[in-house]
Amino acid sequence: MSGISQDTRDWLAQLGVIPQDDRLWLAALTHGSYEADRNYERLEFLGDRVLGLSIAEWLYAENNAPEGKLSQRLNALVSGATCARVARSIGLPDHIRLGKQAREDGARDSDNILGDVMEALLGAHFLDHGFEPTRDLVRRLWADVFAGDLGERKHPKSALQEWAAGNRRKPPEYELVARDGPDHAARFTVRVSVLNVGSAEATASNKQEAEKLAAEAFMEQFG
Amino acid sequence: MSGISQDTRDWLAQLGVIPQDDRLWLAALTHGSYEADRNYERLEFLGDRVLGLSIAEWLYAENNAPEGKLSQRLNALVSGATCARVARSIGLPDHIRLGKQAREDGARDSDNILGDVMEALLGAHFLDHGFEPTRDLVRRLWADVFAGDLGERKHPKSALQEWAAGNRRKPPEYELVARDGPDHAARFTVRVSVLNVGSAEATASNKQEAEKLAAEAFMEQFG
Repeated sequence: MSGISQDTRDWLAQLGVIPQDDRLWLAALTHGSYEADRNYERLEFLGDRVLGLSIAEWLYAENNAPEGKLSQRLNALVSGATCARVARSIGLPDHIRLGKQAREDGARDSDNILGDVMEALLGAHFLDHGFEPTRDLVRRLWADVFAGDLGERKHPKSALQEWAAGNRRKPPEYELVARDGPDHAARFTVRVSVLNVGSAEATASNKQEAEKLAAEAFMEQFG
Repeated sequence: MSGISQDTRDWLAQLGVIPQDDRLWLAALTHGSYEADRNYERLEFLGDRVLGLSIAEWLYAENNAPEGKLSQRLNALVSGATCARVARSIGLPDHIRLGKQAREDGARDSDNILGDVMEALLGAHFLDHGFEPTRDLVRRLWADVFAGDLGERKHPKSALQEWAAGNRRKPPEYELVARDGPDHAARFTVRVSVLNVGSAEATASNKQEAEKLAAEAFMEQFG
């Protein structure tokens, strides 16, 4: 089993997550089609309960609603669809390790898989850092949906992906075109292209951010 | 709302529980028939998820079973029937605050109510002491059922209660007949009687224990 890619490590750092036990995080990001032995299923089982308690505690503390109302809110906030929405909002789809066939079948955009991996990541965080830091992470990641803002604010890369699909174009392709500056202050320039449409570039202090800004720039120009 | 009775406080201490916020524990032990405003329902909502995560973590750590097996085991260990069984094994029924009608309707022996109060206590403990100490409490209380020992080892008071009902007798009555010694080393003597059958006495350093021993003595003599 290979290690966590630098890309994925940067992305986790942006979420405020520092992996201690890399194997947990690799497993959480691995679909059974990529590796049958060490995939996200057991961590998803655990993460499902981590999420449930995190949200239950939050609801309990925030309002004095009767039990029936709390259960109803909780069910909506932990549903597979909500987990998938949160997963997309943080750019999770890029980091899932999928087998070739699953990739071609569109697994990267499956609500079921995105929701499960989202929960598996919470399971990994719980084992790695304990309950309270994980509860705090849930509160950051779920802040928008908890506030009832179930609007359509998509991650720029998801928005571009959907735009391309909706316009019967090939999926966008990201390419690192330059890496400048010393290691402690590196600058990454990424170009995103959609075949037969055009391309856009952006620069940032990490690749994730540069991709996000490039997607935004592309959408401004062509979207 | 009155405070926690000394009886209930002693019982909690025997379980290793020291209430910080008394109101939580009173609410956890209060059925809606006793007090509509501050009953166990919201704490049960929370405790349900505390129990779920505690057992999920335990199962995850104990064995390498696939997710389906873990879910199956978890569902059995957190079911209302299992919660009620654990509640009986620790003598919880005596400590539930019920309205008169509910008492007469046998609420004290209802699996639903016992299971809910058991979960509400875990919710109170979680708010009072945090996740890890509560998880440790679950591991103590669920040790027998987790080990697959779903046998019929009942609390002596429950066993006597059931024996009386099964023999068409009035329920056993417990009476404190003596309290000796200085406060820091008090000795409690309890007599348990079943009308038209007989009585038995026992002495211990707290009333709970004396009642338990008296019930045992009664069953040895008459059961």
